Amino acid sequence: MVTAAASFSLVRHELARVEQALAETAQPDHPLLGPMLSTILPGSGKRLRPTLAMLVGNLGEFRLEPMLHMATGVELLHTASLVHDDVVDESELRRGSRTLFTRVGNALAVLVGDYLFAQAAERCVATHNVRVIGLFAQTLSSMCQGQIEEASRGNEPHLTVTKDAYLQTIWGKTASLFVLACEGSAILAGLDEPRIQAMRRYGERVGLAFQIVDDLLDFVGDEASLGKRVGSDLRQGTITLPVICLRDALPAAEFAAAFDEYDVDRLVELVRGSAAIERARAEAERLLEEARSSLELVPAGEPRDALECLTHYVAERRA
Amino acid sequence: MVTAAASFSLVRHELARVEQALAETAQPDHPLLGPMLSTILPGSGKRLRPTLAMLVGNLGEFRLEPMLHMATGVELLHTASLVHDDVVDESELRRGSRTLFTRVGNALAVLVGDYLFAQAAERCVATHNVRVIGLFAQTLSSMCQGQIEEASRGNEPHLTVTKDAYLQTIWGKTASLFVLACEGSAILAGLDEPRIQAMRRYGERVGLAFQIVDDLLDFVGDEASLGKRVGSDLRQGTITLPVICLRDALPAAEFAAAFDEYDVDRLVELVRGSAAIERARAEAERLLEEARSSLELVPAGEPRDALECLTHYVAERRA
Repeated sequence: MVTAAASFSLVRHELARVEQALAETAQPDHPLLGPMLSTILPGSGKRLRPTLAMLVGNLGEFRLEPMLHMATGVELLHTASLVHDDVVDESELRRGSRTLFTRVGNALAVLVGDYLFAQAAERCVATHNVRVIGLFAQTLSSMCQGQIEEASRGNEPHLTVTKDAYLQTIWGKTASLFVLACEGSAILAGLDEPRIQAMRRYGERVGLAFQIVDDLLDFVGDEASLGKRVGSDLRQGTITLPVICLRDALPAAEFAAAFDEYDVDRLVELVRGSAAIERARAEAERLLEEARSSLELVPAGEPRDALECLTHYVAERRA
Repeated sequence: MVTAAASFSLVRHELARVEQALAETAQPDHPLLGPMLSTILPGSGKRLRPTLAMLVGNLGEFRLEPMLHMATGVELLHTASLVHDDVVDESELRRGSRTLFTRVGNALAVLVGDYLFAQAAERCVATHNVRVIGLFAQTLSSMCQGQIEEASRGNEPHLTVTKDAYLQTIWGKTASLFVLACEGSAILAGLDEPRIQAMRRYGERVGLAFQIVDDLLDFVGDEASLGKRVGSDLRQGTITLPVICLRDALPAAEFAAAFDEYDVDRLVELVRGSAAIERARAEAERLLEEARSSLELVPAGEPRDALECLTHYVAERRA
């Protein structure tokens, strides 16, 4: 049995190159961009998406240069979307650090996010693979639609958000980027069409589960590890799977009454004390099981074992 | 001598298709996007950039489908940047209408701008021309850099902005999109490399002149035609060419004193009463003359005459 650490380690040389590419994109010598980008690009995060991309790339004919552009582009796209997320949510903290929005203000954070989208586009174009570039553009579109759905939902009555609507939203805002990482790499590595589709499915299921676990941690996570208060989604007016499961677990009148008050601490306690957590976790597990069965189509070996291992890592992460 | 109206009219059928593509992108049936996009996409503006793209396309082997994607992508990119501009400047009005920022707020305006960038990317990818797609990504990058330079300059002492720094900024924020329209079309129309470079130069010079005229109109324009107050750039803390020319026209102490007070109405009067307007206009004329000489390299005929005519239109426009 491979460990998560061993899975990341399998592509450590490739990830070091991604890290270097991100450090270059941060333009340390640029008087305006350097100070802003250097705090958000280099050395931050676990690089889960580039890791998935590099592992999938190792299932076929691995060519470093296009894979490097692809993995870097995916991470830049991810960073760009976080910068705009913080603008949209007016977030002060992300993982315990002050956000770019807080440090440089709304206007520059919007523009720096745009600049990172542009850098991501340049990286994806540098793969010189028209299919991958097309997938990139679709991903950008899906991500924006997911964000717009979530941001607009603040005005809807909370009782009406369905599990399907939730899944569609997180498909766009989170899973689409995992799809780009996995399907894009499968295309670049020259896998055949059934295997490309299998990697697309793997990325989609892992991405959906990743977001569900994120949304669970917002109720049951440890505030110190998360670097933010629990219940932050509810404070933003964002309804996630645990709340949808709570609605299914409680009598309608009781649920409605709890929401009429909208005491976030009380709602968090309600979710924690109900079967909602367990049900949401079961949904994530179901998706990850589907991700694992998608792996049956690709060649056995260390990269496949690592991809399987990462499905457990996504389920078990605590922050 | 061709008139501006005749120049636009030469590609009216192609422009009608662009208008239709923009109307489809506005997704009138989408419950969230429809109401927001329908107010900013269809039927607004003169479509100068798509017109230039279509005219350049007619200099070579014109193929409607890729040209349509290209011209639509350019206009979507332009609209996306206007949406984010209004967010950055917190603008209430654009051409006399309430901005999307004012109507839907900061968060949704940021996301709708992102969505339009994504739609522009999808259009450019649909040209299936890797060189054009690469040019698109570079353009996005240049535009963001131009915007970031301008937004960051608010904190600099006004006396230090040079004409070169100004030209570099407007190259990114405005001219790069004209370059995409003209160079991109020249590539799609299969022009040879010297002609592609000539069309790049034409687009660049027209774009720079267009922005200089815009910045002039902010001092000498008619408020009713502009749909905004004069002096709005100065009110935003943005230093444009007329002010740089004023600095060169006045004794240093007098200029510094006027800026220490920062009475915008008084500064507008100073600019109007000096040689600054004339000097800035001469700079635009010089650039447009260079644009016209770039046209000597391409085949004579109606499209070329129309491109020449549009250089006069850019110089003479009043709003």
